This record gives sequence, structure tokens and C-alpha cells, in this order.
Amino acid sequence: MAQYHMNKREREITGKEELQALLREGKFATIAMCRNSEPYVVTLSYGYDSGKHALYFHSALEGLKLDFIRENPRVCGTVIQDGGYVTGQCEHRYASVVFWGEMQLVETLEEKKHAFEVLIDQLEAEPAPVKARIFKSDKVYDTAGILRLDIMEMTGKKGK
Amino acid sequence: MAQYHMNKREREITGKEELQALLREGKFATIAMCRNSEPYVVTLSYGYDSGKHALYFHSALEGLKLDFIRENPRVCGTVIQDGGYVTGQCEHRYASVVFWGEMQLVETLEEKKHAFEVLIDQLEAEPAPVKARIFKSDKVYDTAGILRLDIMEMTGKKGK
Repeated sequence: MAQYHMNKREREITGKEELQALLREGKFATIAMCRNSEPYVVTLSYGYDSGKHALYFHSALEGLKLDFIRENPRVCGTVIQDGGYVTGQCEHRYASVVFWGEMQLVETLEEKKHAFEVLIDQLEAEPAPVKARIFKSDKVYDTAGILRLDIMEMTGKKGK
Repeated sequence: MAQYHMNKREREITGKEELQALLREGKFATIAMCRNSEPYVVTLSYGYDSGKHALYFHSALEGLKLDFIRENPRVCGTVIQDGGYVTGQCEHRYASVVFWGEMQLVETLEEKKHAFEVLIDQLEAEPAPVKARIFKSDKVYDTAGILRLDIMEMTGKKGK
């Protein structure tokens, strides 16, 4: 996978557009967090905002991942396009992007609304009816946490 | 995904056998590492040794992940069974296991051989011919690094 052959430079994805395409096409991201010397990992559905170069996540308002990012907002995450194991070849077909950035809770109603748009546009094949159903009132935002991950650096790899 | 609804207890997988089945069936794991306050994530093919309750990974002998685990062997990883996004439902079908443990380089030739067996048995549909091809001599072990992740704790979630 991503770092399976991290020393093999010919596998690196260098184009920003190709990396952004991976972020646009993915449905979930796995995020590594770090508190003192304690690592933690979560996997979350997301939407990619290419203008902000940020990922949005829907989240509870309390929980272990929020404790981690409050103590240390620095995260490192990955999105993987899984093409499956290549039988008999000791190889896995994949493309992956790894990114570094900071993650925080979104505070304003305006940005929460924007984040839901980004999420639903990415996840749903037909966003319009889902939006119509969910956004009947602003109450949905009262209990929903939204996290934004601002990407500062990224790299990618592919195999086979 | 795994922690998307971490507060929803009805989604928790509590049976050790069900969690072990996820580890036996997966082809790759995503591993979070932590050095001082710096997070890092890698995704690697693996084999699960249920007797040792450990994962084995093939690795280069140098690289960023080795620097990380030399400084801090504590890791947190995940294996995800991806059933795909459920269109129109704001839901992703998945099962995932999250585990905590320590990761280190395997030193002895004997354990390296064992690890390759575990890896190939997990990854390959027909392990025998692949083993016959790879294990013609012990030279393969000179340049190949093997990492072992001893699992100390694990939990799981599933959705839909």
C-alpha cells in the first residue's frame, strides 16, 4: 500500500491534480492523531473542498477524537483507492494519498451548512433529494459536529 | 466508518472471534504512529498470526516509519471491510477493527521465515506456488525487513 514501497520513487504520485482527484473520489479517510506519545486512528466519511483544500467530516460533539484534536490539532491522514490484491504477484493494486494538516471543530452555522453541502455532494450520487430531506430546518446543526481538516502538505503513491 | 458513530454503542463489535475474523480476512492495515507531537500514517499489506495475536508486515529496512517506531513503538491501527456507500441513506456499509499495540523489526531468520509464511498465506489464494518461487534461497531475507505488531487491545464497529 501507500508506504509499502515508500523507498521506490517510481511509485510516487507527484501531480497535484492527480492527488486532488483521489481526494475528490474517495468516500472515507483514515486519520492518525497524536496525544503526547499516544497514537490514535479513526476512519470517517468526508467531503473534499478543493477551494479551501480541506476535508470536512461529520462528527459527534464529544468523543475520543475530539479530545485528541483539542490537545493536538496536528493530524496525518490517508485516502486509499483499493484496486484489490493481485493474486500470485505479491502485489496490491492501489493509489493512495497521504496528507498532513490541522483539524478543528467548525463553529459557525454558515460554515456548517457549507460543510454539509460538500459532504453530501461528495458522498451521494444524487445529492438534491438528500439535501431536501436533511435541510428542512436548521435544527440538524444544533447536535451535529463538523470537523475541518486543513491540508498543508500531501504526497501519494500507486502500485501496479 | 469506525468512529463515525463512536458514541453509538449498538454498533460496537464486542466478540473477539468476530474481530479476529476481520483481521484474518483483511489484506491491508492502516497504522498510526506518533513521534513527539507528530502523527504519521502508513498503509501496509499484512498477515495476521492468531496464535501470537500479531500482525506481520513486509518493509524496507530504512524509511520514515522505521524512524517513527524506533522512537516510539506504540501504534494504533485499523483494518476496514468496506461494503460501500449506501446511496441516499447517508450511510456507509462497513466493519472495522481498531487495535493498539507495539511494532518492532523482527531480528531472527527463523521468525522472518515464519512471517513470510503468515503473509503469503493471508494474501495469496494459492500460497504454495508463490512460496516455492520466493523461498528458493535464504537470500530474500537479507534485504527484506519484517515488522511485527503485537496487539494489546482491540475494538470494532460496524455500520448498516
